[in-house]
Parts: sequence; C-alpha cells; structure tokens
Amino acid sequence: MPTPSYVLYRTLAGIQGAACEEVAFAGDWSLPERFGDPRTADGVPVRLAIVPNPNSPSGTVVAPEVLARFAERLPCPLVIDEAYADFADRDCLALVRSCERVIVTRTLSKGHALAGIRFGFAVARPEMIRELEKVKDSYNCDALSIAAATAAIGDRDWQRANREAIRATRGRLAAELRRLGFTVQDSQANFVWCTHPSRRHRAIYEALKERRILVRWMNYPGWGDGLRVTVGTDSETDAFLAAVARIVPSV
Amino acid sequence: MPTPSYVLYRTLAGIQGAACEEVAFAGDWSLPERFGDPRTADGVPVRLAIVPNPNSPSGTVVAPEVLARFAERLPCPLVIDEAYADFADRDCLALVRSCERVIVTRTLSKGHALAGIRFGFAVARPEMIRELEKVKDSYNCDALSIAAATAAIGDRDWQRANREAIRATRGRLAAELRRLGFTVQDSQANFVWCTHPSRRHRAIYEALKERRILVRWMNYPGWGDGLRVTVGTDSETDAFLAAVARIVPSV
Repeated sequence: MPTPSYVLYRTLAGIQGAACEEVAFAGDWSLPERFGDPRTADGVPVRLAIVPNPNSPSGTVVAPEVLARFAERLPCPLVIDEAYADFADRDCLALVRSCERVIVTRTLSKGHALAGIRFGFAVARPEMIRELEKVKDSYNCDALSIAAATAAIGDRDWQRANREAIRATRGRLAAELRRLGFTVQDSQANFVWCTHPSRRHRAIYEALKERRILVRWMNYPGWGDGLRVTVGTDSETDAFLAAVARIVPSV
Repeated sequence: MPTPSYVLYRTLAGIQGAACEEVAFAGDWSLPERFGDPRTADGVPVRLAIVPNPNSPSGTVVAPEVLARFAERLPCPLVIDEAYADFADRDCLALVRSCERVIVTRTLSKGHALAGIRFGFAVARPEMIRELEKVKDSYNCDALSIAAATAAIGDRDWQRANREAIRATRGRLAAELRRLGFTVQDSQANFVWCTHPSRRHRAIYEALKERRILVRWMNYPGWGDGLRVTVGTDSETDAFLAAVARIVPSV
C-alpha cells in the first residue's frame, strides 16, 4: 500500500495477521515503479496491493492508465479503493473489464452522504468475485441497508447535484486557504489537504477544536504533518474559514 | 465445539485459519467432561470453546450450572450462543456476572423475527469486551439496524407474545409428529428435531420440497440423519403436518 495514505488499512491487515509494506508516494503524489514489484523489500511475494484513489489525505489521483500498468505487473489482485471517486474527474471502473486482477471498491458513505448505512461494494470480474465469495460470510448486508442503497444508487440526479455542490465548495475552500497562506493540494476528493509554511498544524487543529470545529490533524512519522479539511456545507465552510483567519496569526 | 451442532462454526473458523475439534454430545445431549479439557485430542491448547444453547438441530439445552462448571475448567473464553434462548425455559445471561470467561451471544433473527436486519450482540464482562474491541472493525452496525434493534429490544410485550405463540405451536407440532410415528426430541428452540424409525428422512424432505414445503434434512456423517422442522405459523404447521401424513406411508 502507498504512504501517506489511509491509515486504517494497516490496522485491518494486522487484525487478519497480515504483514504490510508501505511504498512512499513520490513528491508529486505519483506511485513509484517499485509499487508494481512482485516481492516486498524483504523478498516476500506480494499477495494483495491496495491504492485509495483518490488518495487520503492528499485528495490526489493516480491515472487509470497508470493503475492498469501496475495491475499488469503485480502478481496479485490490485484493490483500487474508490471511496472518494464520486468527487473525481475520472474513475477506474472501466479497468475491471480489461484487467482481471483489478477490484474496485466503492462506498455510499461519501458521494451519497449515507455513512449511517455502512454500505460498500466491490466491482470485479466474475472469476474474482467467485474467489471472494469463498471467504465471505454466508449472510449478506441487512435488508434495510440494501433497500436504502438500492434507492440511493438509483437516484443519479441527487448524486450529481451533491457531487457538483461539493466540488464547487471545494474550489472555494482551497482558494480561501491559499489566500490565508496555506499550501493546498489540488483535490479530487471531498476534502483538501493543506499545510502552512510557518504555523504549527497541531495548534491550528486544537484551536479549531476549542471552537467546536473538527478537522483532521494528520501526522505521518518521517514525512510530516498537515490538516485534512472536509468540504462541508457552505455555512460550515464559512465558519471554518472565519475561524482559521482568526487563529493562523496567533499560532 | 460440540457435534452434532451448528454446522457453520467450522466453516467460519476455517475462513479465519483456525483448527477445530468437535466433541460429540452424549446420547442424552449432555456435554461430556472431555469438553472442558484444556487441550484438544492432539494436545493443542484450546483457545476458544463454543456451545449453541439451545443446540441446533436438537433443540436441547445444557443447564447453566453445567456450563458454569465448564467455563471454570476451560483455559479460554466459552461462547454460549443463545440464538434460540428466547424460546427456552432458562438462559445463561446471569453467568456473565459470575464467570469472567463467558461470552453470551444473541441475535434478533429468531425470537424477534428480524432476520432481515442481521443484528446480533454479545454480552460479557467489561474486561472481555475490551479485548474483543481490539480486533473489531472501528465501524459499527448501520444506523437503520441499530434503530430497528433498539425498538425491537424495547418491545417486550411483542417478544413475549411471539415466544408463547411459538412454544404453543412447537408443542402441537411435536405431538402430531409423534402421532405420525416420529421420534421427536423435546425442544427448547423454535424448531423440532425428529427421526423416523423406518422411513427415509431424505425422501420425506424431498417429497415435502416438491410440495414447496421446506424443512432441513441434516446428515451428520458417522452419527445419522434426521429432519429439523421450524415452527411456523399455525396454518403453515397444519399444511406441513397434512403433507407429512400423506408422504410418510409412501417413502
């Protein structure tokens, strides 16, 4: 898996007794060729590769063509975690047709704003799904969440409107943070990753928390820290920006 | 785990890479002393013991006092799977207070007739729950099923009425099956386990299936087979009994 990236993968792999190797993103958030190697640095054959795309916390994407090449090189399934793909310009669903080792995962927690139903799914070729079903519990998701998910997936108009609203607010949030002196990564997700050249990120996070505004302060040992700010409603975003403008000069 | 018993435990353990040992129930469906031994027959320390109580397919129970003694002897947690406890005279919830190694599991799929919400829970002492949380995914059940489960658990009157209706029909079902020549195990669950001294169980199952009546034909290699018949509504039970009465003389 890449790093800095979604931190829960390592925990979940550990619960399953799996060993993990993290491969650092390049400075431009591209994946180094190393990621497609058939063995880890310790010489162990890779059994599963996973890339969140868009990535968290950066909001950056690896192009589908690039991921297709990694899928061809890797000796194992490549999971492309598209939790945030609803907010991106492109996605990797089409790769499933051409790459038998690609598994695309989706969630309704982000683009459909249905985190409460805890509904995710995987898209892969039938022969891959058959293998996954061997280790799947025989019981499925509950009937209520299946009904809610079916309705949500069918409501393309709502999803499109939500996507466009969040993308518009994301642009405004990034521009305003830059105006306040932050370095802001161009984002394809529903959050932005920002760092400040001179202010302490943790202090900003804590001062915001005192005002009951929660952002994620992320710290990756050996790499650095920063703030991941979710795109909220327009009024939430206004409140956040007003608070940050007051906090930054003082920390 | 005991045998004959719930067959999915072995599959689920296998998915987790765990080895299983089955200990045969005695002829009267009591658990042999062997079940409380700290090591398997192969000399491996036991890491988890599990007893469905009431048991499936027999519908029989092991008394709470007996399970408390096993919990004291075992070197590991004892899971008492009370999926069917809502239909029994007694349950083991009180053991959680006195036995730190007991974990009682429940489901709303049976006594609350809410299989569609796929809601189960475990009851154990706080120190045990803390250990379980270490290997639990950080996301919980979905909000809809939590709301449904909360309402269901609060509706004691409905649960009591459902329990009494099923217990009454269970008694009638068992009596009628005995009248038709079956040997029927006294059941504390929402099904009865029956065998016929001379008719072929699988043929009865198949003839019922042709009439679109589904019961479970269970076959335990080295032990024998029989039919597990769920207690349905009164009209379902009438239809089943009428069909069995016609089928039995012919198979």
